[in-house]
Amino acid sequence: MKSSLLVVGSVAFDSIETRAGKRDEILGGAATFISLAASHFAAVNLVAVVGEGDFPDEHVRLLTDHGVDVTGLERVPGRTFRWAGVYAEDFSTRETLDTQLGVFEAFDPKIPEAYAGARFLMLGNINPGLQLKVLDAMAPECFVATDTMNLWIDIARAELDQVIARTNLLVINDEESLMLTGERQVAVAAEQILARGPSAVVIKRGEHGAFLFTAEDTFFAPAFPLRDVIDPTGAGDSFAGGLMGYLAGQGSTATEDIKRGMLYGTAIASNTCEDFGVDRIKAIDRAGIDERLGALRSLVTVS
Amino acid sequence: MKSSLLVVGSVAFDSIETRAGKRDEILGGAATFISLAASHFAAVNLVAVVGEGDFPDEHVRLLTDHGVDVTGLERVPGRTFRWAGVYAEDFSTRETLDTQLGVFEAFDPKIPEAYAGARFLMLGNINPGLQLKVLDAMAPECFVATDTMNLWIDIARAELDQVIARTNLLVINDEESLMLTGERQVAVAAEQILARGPSAVVIKRGEHGAFLFTAEDTFFAPAFPLRDVIDPTGAGDSFAGGLMGYLAGQGSTATEDIKRGMLYGTAIASNTCEDFGVDRIKAIDRAGIDERLGALRSLVTVS
Repeated sequence: MKSSLLVVGSVAFDSIETRAGKRDEILGGAATFISLAASHFAAVNLVAVVGEGDFPDEHVRLLTDHGVDVTGLERVPGRTFRWAGVYAEDFSTRETLDTQLGVFEAFDPKIPEAYAGARFLMLGNINPGLQLKVLDAMAPECFVATDTMNLWIDIARAELDQVIARTNLLVINDEESLMLTGERQVAVAAEQILARGPSAVVIKRGEHGAFLFTAEDTFFAPAFPLRDVIDPTGAGDSFAGGLMGYLAGQGSTATEDIKRGMLYGTAIASNTCEDFGVDRIKAIDRAGIDERLGALRSLVTVS
Repeated sequence: MKSSLLVVGSVAFDSIETRAGKRDEILGGAATFISLAASHFAAVNLVAVVGEGDFPDEHVRLLTDHGVDVTGLERVPGRTFRWAGVYAEDFSTRETLDTQLGVFEAFDPKIPEAYAGARFLMLGNINPGLQLKVLDAMAPECFVATDTMNLWIDIARAELDQVIARTNLLVINDEESLMLTGERQVAVAAEQILARGPSAVVIKRGEHGAFLFTAEDTFFAPAFPLRDVIDPTGAGDSFAGGLMGYLAGQGSTATEDIKRGMLYGTAIASNTCEDFGVDRIKAIDRAGIDERLGALRSLVTVS
């Protein structure tokens, strides 16, 4: 049964410099990418916070035009979260130039009553204490996907461990999986994570694809070999959003659907990289996504 | 029709230190790994050089026990090529501690008459001038796979370009493909390389798998998610040897067979990494290779 997806995370202004150019204060934030990616497959309910004075209506319209319900998008006094960064020529690293948390510093996610029964939740990368608060508001049968980052592994480990114990699908990158477990190989790290609660863990490797590990199964979704990269910001969140949007749209948490969802997530994430910010994924349609999905499937096919 | 594979390259003693331990003067060299990997699928003819005084009979027996014809293994006065290196904890880099070329410095590959009609040739990473000399000795219908390295791209570009023009299947790593073309994305680098002569280019990405590009097709062979890595030395050569051995064994240069060969090459290369030097691949059998091939195929399968 088709469900909607609840997304909790950051909405931000990003200032980005890559080998392809420079953009100032464009729409970004994990929850933005997750929501737009997921919107191709399911209705999305967004819980986030922005400044009441500086967040343009056109950004809100972009979201609602994609079927994103913004009842949970709080507008409060203060400035919207701002991030600025510059990528290395080959995109292997990026340097943060500036972070201004603004209203995100006091983000206190409130789940509208209509959302509390959601069957699918994507917890974007926010303070694990806030992730716990969201989990407390949800019905126990909710399928929870969680992202996090090295910062929280460092400074909020106890709360993060609680979040992971209540997570069904952990979506993290390879370095985070090693850091979280103290292991040296992702296959072993995944095994450890599965022992802590999640029934599935997806380990993202950026331009090198993503692994899925469950107790019974290992799957690999290859990345698409792009001819050019403009801006990879939000690619990981687009991947997770596509994956969870697909599951919500199917109303399924079956392993085979997680695999298919990873391919859809990859198809969208590769589009994200082909322009700055959300410029590409705000414009793609389902036919374009399906075309890239076909290319991803044929990429690993031997007759 | 089943063919044999002619292999030209280095045979060496490697001294290796990794997080898993240390080994001194163990059997190594590109042609060794290529030959042992290929021997699972085809008869192999080896052209290489070692010192007449320091190369133990047991190493020669190891090769002949695997069906490798050593008529072309010259034993000359002097010392066998020695290399020593240490790998970073996470294997992302390695440092060369010592290189003693010994008899390899004056290597002058002589192709025994019985080998000159070979239909499949794997040119290991040696000086492009020597690669050209080997090519001159071969029949024109020979299917030639070539490896090279950044050193030759730097200092012997003109000769390397001639080798590439006469190569059917170029097998290089991702950094080399970018260096060779001045491009920033492997998909574009591959297109440039295909315009220079080869009908196929395989771009190796180590633990991240390998791409195949032809004029009509793009294929990706995932790497196997190993639970532990002991020593990756020779993994790339094992991959190329498994690939070319498979093609020779099939007597085929069809794209679909190159794809299958890449999966066999990956299966063997992953075994190479699970012990020092040739310790693992000298012991595996075809059933073990087929088992890992099955795991690689299921890794990318969605029902």
